[in-house]
Amino acid sequence: MSQFLEKTIASKLIYEGKIISLYLEDVQLPNGGQAKREVVKHPGAVAVIPITSANKLVLVRQFRKALEKEIYEIPAGKLDPNEAPSACAVRELKEETGYSASFMKELTSFYTSPGFADELIYLFEATGLEKGEAQPDPDEFVEVVEVTLAEAQELLEQKHIHDAKTAYAIQHWLIKNIKRSK
Amino acid sequence: MSQFLEKTIASKLIYEGKIISLYLEDVQLPNGGQAKREVVKHPGAVAVIPITSANKLVLVRQFRKALEKEIYEIPAGKLDPNEAPSACAVRELKEETGYSASFMKELTSFYTSPGFADELIYLFEATGLEKGEAQPDPDEFVEVVEVTLAEAQELLEQKHIHDAKTAYAIQHWLIKNIKRSK
Repeated sequence: MSQFLEKTIASKLIYEGKIISLYLEDVQLPNGGQAKREVVKHPGAVAVIPITSANKLVLVRQFRKALEKEIYEIPAGKLDPNEAPSACAVRELKEETGYSASFMKELTSFYTSPGFADELIYLFEATGLEKGEAQPDPDEFVEVVEVTLAEAQELLEQKHIHDAKTAYAIQHWLIKNIKRSK
Repeated sequence: MSQFLEKTIASKLIYEGKIISLYLEDVQLPNGGQAKREVVKHPGAVAVIPITSANKLVLVRQFRKALEKEIYEIPAGKLDPNEAPSACAVRELKEETGYSASFMKELTSFYTSPGFADELIYLFEATGLEKGEAQPDPDEFVEVVEVTLAEAQELLEQKHIHDAKTAYAIQHWLIKNIKRSK
């Protein structure tokens, strides 16, 4: 039971797109008042932290239209309908980087923008990597790079890495390295 | 110069809302082909990691319509027009929790959903906290809680903490505690 529940009075589909849909919802507030909520629906996604046997992190550089710039990110992609997150993680890692992983471990999941979107990212760590051929989507142009922890932190400092999931991934990797060195 | 630049051929405003706007853009791909991009525009936001003198993290519990559930998050809020992120951090921390901070340090910034949105979050760490009266917005219903690191990790494990910025904040706090204990 939610103490602060906002009950839906009306929900209007504004736009149904290829990746996202936008709804405008009228809600009843806990104090009886009303408000409007803009809600973006997204199919959900996975992101993978691929760590090579040389202890390097595999990143993909790509242009992001929403940001009008190129950034380096951990490999990621949308869930296909009814696709299990672990299967999606294996698929996206292979498509974007060419790597197959002997070990694919689910770490956590998080919503990216709870204020307006339901996008949920399942985060995996991939190790035991074996290199093959990348198979990007026809409208996807990516460059694969492998970086040390220091290089990743430098990219973050310079805002060439500039998104939440990749910033999280670097912290995860840092914590893992600290624990291993103890 | 961006190697993978997607040049805008046409941009159509689909919806202009209170918090977000949605655009549908036709772009020219690096190989000369064309594609459509759905882009959500957002004013940007701040999030604050408030750490008390008792080494507790201040969280706010609130209902998120996009998720249809309540979650615990670090205090956060949208930038007002022309508002400096540091001023917004001071304002949102005060409004949502009642706390004023002697030290407000900018840590980093990250895009939350680069695949479809331009929302950029500026992240701050607030220390030297002094308690006052919270002043939430009229349509904002929040409960303030203070948790230890172990309690925060437990909330994350149970998915009561379930968003990227707060997951990042807990990692940041963990790394800080590890460094201090060395």
